Amino acid sequence: MHKLRTIEMSRLTVGEFKASPKIPLVVVLDDVRSAYNVGSVFRTGDAFRIERVCLCGITATPPSAEIHKTALGGEDSVDWTYYKDTADCVAALRERGYSVWSVEQVEHSVKLNRLDEVAIPGADGHGGVAVVFGNEVKGVRQDIVDMSDACLEIPQFGTKHSLNVSVTAGIVIWEFARRLMTSLRG
Amino acid sequence: MHKLRTIEMSRLTVGEFKASPKIPLVVVLDDVRSAYNVGSVFRTGDAFRIERVCLCGITATPPSAEIHKTALGGEDSVDWTYYKDTADCVAALRERGYSVWSVEQVEHSVKLNRLDEVAIPGADGHGGVAVVFGNEVKGVRQDIVDMSDACLEIPQFGTKHSLNVSVTAGIVIWEFARRLMTSLRG
Repeated sequence: MHKLRTIEMSRLTVGEFKASPKIPLVVVLDDVRSAYNVGSVFRTGDAFRIERVCLCGITATPPSAEIHKTALGGEDSVDWTYYKDTADCVAALRERGYSVWSVEQVEHSVKLNRLDEVAIPGADGHGGVAVVFGNEVKGVRQDIVDMSDACLEIPQFGTKHSLNVSVTAGIVIWEFARRLMTSLRG
Repeated sequence: MHKLRTIEMSRLTVGEFKASPKIPLVVVLDDVRSAYNVGSVFRTGDAFRIERVCLCGITATPPSAEIHKTALGGEDSVDWTYYKDTADCVAALRERGYSVWSVEQVEHSVKLNRLDEVAIPGADGHGGVAVVFGNEVKGVRQDIVDMSDACLEIPQFGTKHSLNVSVTAGIVIWEFARRLMTSLRG
């Protein structure tokens, strides 16, 4: 089996990326401590063409050498906005018609493996979903959880019940992309 | 919505983990350069109760401070084996009845979003799948690709067509877990 060279991968330029359709997904980072995790989210957001990353509170913003190290340029293609307070970000997104889903382990959460059974806002071309990922230690702030339309949980079966933020974001963004990627093909 | 405390998460002890059923999935790391990526794979492997991680070539092995920093103990719960040569690892796994799937961007790859349409070896209780992840820069070795039963590819739509190894492993392991997790419930 022949490994593809990069010129065979139909990679977009940054300009083409900006002009291309996106999946109706916004990622909100609530007080994420590690700039490497922020960069990784940009890289994943580039791969699956999400709409925007909202960087809130203590979350680092570009330009940043640490973000660039793991984003590898994804911080230039994916649009981003900074909010001092995550609550203002969530209020602004709801105002614009987004459903806000915090990724947290809570009572009555929607398990990610059941996402197939849930109608995803934005799949019909109107509105979208904003998924909130929290601080590496504390998770999503309780008041943000309380403001959310739903909580999304990755079911886990091991000794920790804890995944790295970059990996969690990768899995959740993938799961939306898997459902919504038909909107990315011309 | 009430955030779960760790005592409410039914986390397993390492002993309980070792005795619990696993999803029929082995992860093979082929010359992975970063010990942090290795640790992250252990943490994810713990969360979804995979069978084993095979660490090959230059890939770091426990005990390692870097692995522990990102594995957070996953290196104690998930079984692992070291092979000097990835080809010996792949041959040994095939001998034991595993299908070997390299994660690579190649011609005629199986796209991860089409995994639902493919019968997964091991889902019926016999055999299993070994997924191979390659070096951060070079990917999976061409001779290992050539030895593989199939190649699995995460479709990507952005400017890079490249994801971090930890994130790639997280997405692929999740996709298998999503399909196979019924085998983890008592």
